Order: sequence, then structure tokens, then C-alpha cells
Amino acid sequence: MATEGEKGQVKLLGATLSPFVVRVRIALALKGIDYEFIQESMHPKSELLVKSNPVHKKIPVLIHNGKPVCESMIIVQYIEEAWGNKAPNLMPEDPYDRAIARFWAAFVDDKLFPCLRGVFTGQGEQLQKAVEDSVTNFLLIEEALRTNHCFAGKAYFGGDQIGLIDIALGGLSAFIKGLEKATDSVLIDPEKMPLLSAWMDRFFKSDGAKEVMPDVAKQAEFISTRRASMISPPTAN
Amino acid sequence: MATEGEKGQVKLLGATLSPFVVRVRIALALKGIDYEFIQESMHPKSELLVKSNPVHKKIPVLIHNGKPVCESMIIVQYIEEAWGNKAPNLMPEDPYDRAIARFWAAFVDDKLFPCLRGVFTGQGEQLQKAVEDSVTNFLLIEEALRTNHCFAGKAYFGGDQIGLIDIALGGLSAFIKGLEKATDSVLIDPEKMPLLSAWMDRFFKSDGAKEVMPDVAKQAEFISTRRASMISPPTAN
Repeated sequence: MATEGEKGQVKLLGATLSPFVVRVRIALALKGIDYEFIQESMHPKSELLVKSNPVHKKIPVLIHNGKPVCESMIIVQYIEEAWGNKAPNLMPEDPYDRAIARFWAAFVDDKLFPCLRGVFTGQGEQLQKAVEDSVTNFLLIEEALRTNHCFAGKAYFGGDQIGLIDIALGGLSAFIKGLEKATDSVLIDPEKMPLLSAWMDRFFKSDGAKEVMPDVAKQAEFISTRRASMISPPTAN
Repeated sequence: MATEGEKGQVKLLGATLSPFVVRVRIALALKGIDYEFIQESMHPKSELLVKSNPVHKKIPVLIHNGKPVCESMIIVQYIEEAWGNKAPNLMPEDPYDRAIARFWAAFVDDKLFPCLRGVFTGQGEQLQKAVEDSVTNFLLIEEALRTNHCFAGKAYFGGDQIGLIDIALGGLSAFIKGLEKATDSVLIDPEKMPLLSAWMDRFFKSDGAKEVMPDVAKQAEFISTRRASMISPPTAN
């Protein structure tokens, strides 16, 4: 187990607007772990990034006592286990509930995120299709919030407190709101998804999340700039 | 914790040739858990499958005391945790080593498998490209086997015994050998990947794996038939 408050022992290589980095920052904030944030420029990728994550060369990377951990949800589970003596628990105790948490966290990454990426990069019909597919997946999450014994009637997917799914989905929430703004789309309709919509508002204001959540206007501006560059990529000179 | 030998309490919905089902069967075999195997035809999908896995409608599904768990590697982790009192441990104790195990298991699903699927479905240049991409990823695994402190010089990724990565990658091994045979490709070249090649031979013959591993000739025949049907899909009548 790691001991508390060893700033300098914990470094996070990331970028403030990356939804995957936000996930890790929320987990660190909830556990009350001090860390040094190292801003990664990505263009070009830093030597530290390439050395720490030679397989994917992606942020976030958590460096704990000199050893790198990669992939946001693997980092979140690592934080839970390496600082297992620190409240709150980010995972349920019951093995079945843990499987449910992993299932929906994986759903966010494997099913929902590819659709959101389609909203990010798409134009015209492709954008429309990506919005529809995103909505389909959000409706499945709404249904789970309504019926699953782990979440129904609870404040968070983790029950009374934030857990693995909250971090997986909630880490994307400024990105989702930014996408809506930048593309003038509705992804989470409060009328069709009252539980999900209320959960997101609650999550946004929660301790741990609110300190590190990117500003939605800045996120939208970043997305708009990137979308514009995809239509008219800058020339080499 | 589940008690031992409750046959009828544990059901696995699957198909013998599915590499993802093989993963779960290996984990169950290693832990010595009795279970009822329910063959899923997939065409059409059974009511039990649709009810048990309404989100993905895919096999495998483990049904334990009436409650379904979906997604092969989530099931494997569930088996490890629900039968945590039964040897062997499928996950390392150390949090950092656990993160490494999850990282490479995710690599198999997120990076390697899409390339293997490309080999499965591809023809001509697309097939060639998918083979090259698969080899690139296998070489990364070979490198990890050579250098990572968790695996280097060990019999398995799990050390002296089979662990999470062994199951993630090893569950695919008959499928990989079948793909090589059906497409006349070399995916794991013993000269370029001596450690990976030796590991796969060792894994194939290991207790737990050998009992449930599909026959490579049957796997190749299945793959060839499916590939042929993709070129000339059967007409509706």
C-alpha cells in the first residue's frame, strides 16, 4: 500500500481537456492523493510519454514511484487498489456488483465512446448518424439507471458515493456537453433521459469532480477548432 | 463467496469454437468449478441469450445463481473474485502487477483482436494488411515477454501459473492457429517470436487449457467456411 501525501512520488502526465485524463484526476481527488500534474503537449509527443507508454503513446499516464500505469480505467482501478486503505471505495465489495461496474465502464469505452468520437469528427450525415448512435447508447444507460439493482433510486452509479461507472462516464461529461454545444446537437435530452440528465448535473457539482472538470465553453471551443481543422486541414508551411 | 461443486448453480451459455467462450472455460477449469454448458446456436439467438445479455446479445454469458455476467474478461475477473478462496489465483497480489495484467489483457482485446478479425474477414490486400498489423502486435507481446519484470523468464504471463493475460491471449490460441491454417498466413513466426511461440505451445498443453481448447483443424474448417460465405453470401431463399 502506498503511504499518504508523497507528492513527487505521484505524477500524472496529461492534458486538462482530455476526458480520459479527467477520469484519473477525479479518482485522485476523491482519494485525496497529492500529485504533480505534467502537461503533455502531444505535438510532438514528449520523450517522457513515449518512454512511459511505448505501446499506445497516449495520455493519461500515472507515474507512481517511477513506475508508469497506462490506460485511464486501468489507472483508476490501480488507484483503488494501491490506495485501498483510503476512503472512498471506488468499487463495490460484492463480486457480482463489481462485475456490473466493470460491464458498464467497459460499455462507456467500447460502445458509447466510438459514437461520441463520430460526433467529434463527423459532418453532415455521418454526424447525424453518430448523434443517433450516441443517443441509442445513452438510452441504454438511462434504462440501466431505472432498472439495475445497483443504481436504481441511488444518487450515483456507485450508490451513495461516486464509483467506477461514475468516473468512466462522468469523466466524459464536460466533453459530452462540449460536443453538444460545438455541433448544436442534443445527446442527453432531459425529457427522454431524466435520470441520466439529473445524474450528470449532480456529478458535475460533486466534490472531486467539480475541481477538475474542464469548463464547458473552453471544451466546446477546443472541439470547434479541432472540427474546423479536420474540414480544412492546415497546410504544411 | 460461492461454495464448491454446486452444479446447476453455474451455467455457461456459449459455443465450443468461440475463443471468448474458451477463455471462460479455461478459468472455470483452472478453479475446478463444475458448470452446465448450454450450447447457443446464435442463428437465431436464443431467448435466454437475449434476456441474459440484452445490451450486447453476445456469448459467453455466465449465469451464477440465476444472475448473468457478460463479456469474457469481466467474467474471468468475476470468477477470480467470486471463487477467491479457490486456487489458483488468476490475478497477481501486487497492485502494480495487477495493472500490468489488465493492461496486456486489454491490449489483446483492443489492439490485437481487431487485427485478427481483419484476418478472419479480409481478402487480398486487406488480408495482407491485417496479417501485417497482427504481426506488429504479436511482436509487441514478444518484446513484453522478453523485458517485462512480471513475465521475463517465467513459464506464463502469470509467472509459474496461468493468469489473466494467459487466459486473454491463450483463449484465442486455437483461433489464431486456425486463422493461420485457413488463410495460409504466418501470424506467430517461431524465429521472430521464439518466446511467444514457446509460450503458446506450453499453454496449449497446460492443464485447464488442453481440456477445452478447440481442435485446430475444426477451427480452421469453421473459419474457411465462414470466409467462403463472406465472399459468396448465401441467398435468402
